[in-house]
Amino acid sequence: MSEFKNVNIVKLANVYFDGKVNSRTIIFADGSKKTLGFMQPGEYTFNTSEPELMEILAGELEVQLPGTDWQTVQGGESFNVPANSAFTMKVKTASDYCCSFLR
Amino acid sequence: MSEFKNVNIVKLANVYFDGKVNSRTIIFADGSKKTLGFMQPGEYTFNTSEPELMEILAGELEVQLPGTDWQTVQGGESFNVPANSAFTMKVKTASDYCCSFLR
Repeated sequence: MSEFKNVNIVKLANVYFDGKVNSRTIIFADGSKKTLGFMQPGEYTFNTSEPELMEILAGELEVQLPGTDWQTVQGGESFNVPANSAFTMKVKTASDYCCSFLR
Repeated sequence: MSEFKNVNIVKLANVYFDGKVNSRTIIFADGSKKTLGFMQPGEYTFNTSEPELMEILAGELEVQLPGTDWQTVQGGESFNVPANSAFTMKVKTASDYCCSFLR
């Protein structure tokens, strides 16, 4: 089973949309961060400050990235989000994700 | 902000009850394990194999432990569950928890 090794993890969850989306922040030795998160079905818009790589680990959703049409994303697929933008997800089935904050 | 340091974390979420409960497994250098989890409102019964310490980090729920009446537990409170037993939670508001597996 894939693991992130020798990392720090913030104990408290990050909670969004009344808890329909929650994530845990992981901090790597080089200071970089990822969040491991989980989303209930629903529609959610997130704003970015840094560029993000969103890996969908399990589940199914549609995503609208800046200036693009809706696209379907399933477990095992990923997409990139530019810095200082926003993206909207329509989560069809409860979805597990890993978000990497790129610099 | 409280962190667990120098741990391994399993990338994929543990998913229960159609995703209404999800958790992440953390493995410490001594091999001990905790899960950091998040529960949507609802009623859930879990079975234990090892004794567990359940710390409720945020939220509000009622718990029925083996042979006891329902009791209310809020963020900042915790309870112990014996090995090889079962406990039921009625989660009132989305709840963040840390479960330690004791040996």
